[in-house]
Amino acid sequence: MQKECEIVGILQDKLKYKERLQYMKYYFPLNYTVTVQYEEVLRTSNVSRLRDEAITEPSLRYLWFHVSSQVVLKIRDVLPEQHPSWSYTQELCDLLEGLGVEYEKYKQGDMDIVVADLVKRIHDAEAGSNRKPVRPKALLDNCVKVMRMLYSTPWWTVFLL
Amino acid sequence: MQKECEIVGILQDKLKYKERLQYMKYYFPLNYTVTVQYEEVLRTSNVSRLRDEAITEPSLRYLWFHVSSQVVLKIRDVLPEQHPSWSYTQELCDLLEGLGVEYEKYKQGDMDIVVADLVKRIHDAEAGSNRKPVRPKALLDNCVKVMRMLYSTPWWTVFLL
Repeated sequence: MQKECEIVGILQDKLKYKERLQYMKYYFPLNYTVTVQYEEVLRTSNVSRLRDEAITEPSLRYLWFHVSSQVVLKIRDVLPEQHPSWSYTQELCDLLEGLGVEYEKYKQGDMDIVVADLVKRIHDAEAGSNRKPVRPKALLDNCVKVMRMLYSTPWWTVFLL
Repeated sequence: MQKECEIVGILQDKLKYKERLQYMKYYFPLNYTVTVQYEEVLRTSNVSRLRDEAITEPSLRYLWFHVSSQVVLKIRDVLPEQHPSWSYTQELCDLLEGLGVEYEKYKQGDMDIVVADLVKRIHDAEAGSNRKPVRPKALLDNCVKVMRMLYSTPWWTVFLL
């Protein structure tokens, strides 16, 4: 858990507004979009709704982790390795991969069926769910907002200070 | 004429393969395209055909200048000013603008009607000609190849050395 908080802390720093603006907006052509699955657009409103449905916090964090990982991979995959945003995106991939190792420890446990189903659809390229074009920065903005929502309870804050 | 050659010399240097690769390929997302008019894809084969139709060399250079200017403007216009390719593209715009001042001196003269018509269509956004998506580097590759074709006669070479 300590390790998980450490990684989230580094991610919060890497995902600062200034970094997102530079690497995900200024270094892309205007109006450039990445096509993602409908489920990969995870907004705070979606998380609030899931909370209302009594989905557990570990399940929500597990969902956020899977969405964020997929989204960052999709952004990296549209970039040549020499692109000035590639290394930044790769660093995010590495951090999320590290987080995945931590999540593996409890993911098999009490995942809500709703979340388990969503995660399955995210990883199923053939799921046939709607796809939509979204700007790279908007994808990371969602990632950050949901991260703050899920990791800002007093208990977590202690670890992140 | 001396000034024209100087600018073309600087353009040749700015449009070196390494620069085009970095600023027009590596700094763009994979498979990114800019939509241009059909007439803005000016290949050496097009120029050869126009030469066969006895179009004069000044007319061909005038056509190349207009196509290149439009293409570079279109690339610049898809970029935020903070994008790492923006300044490079702006420098190309400035050089081509300088070349335009030189071309003004003889453009009203003996422009072939075929070229005059093509240039008119390039600047007429409502012309309704076919549009096509082309990668930024491919657009500048055409620009360079045609430039070499038009400015590599022995007479010009003297000025460019």
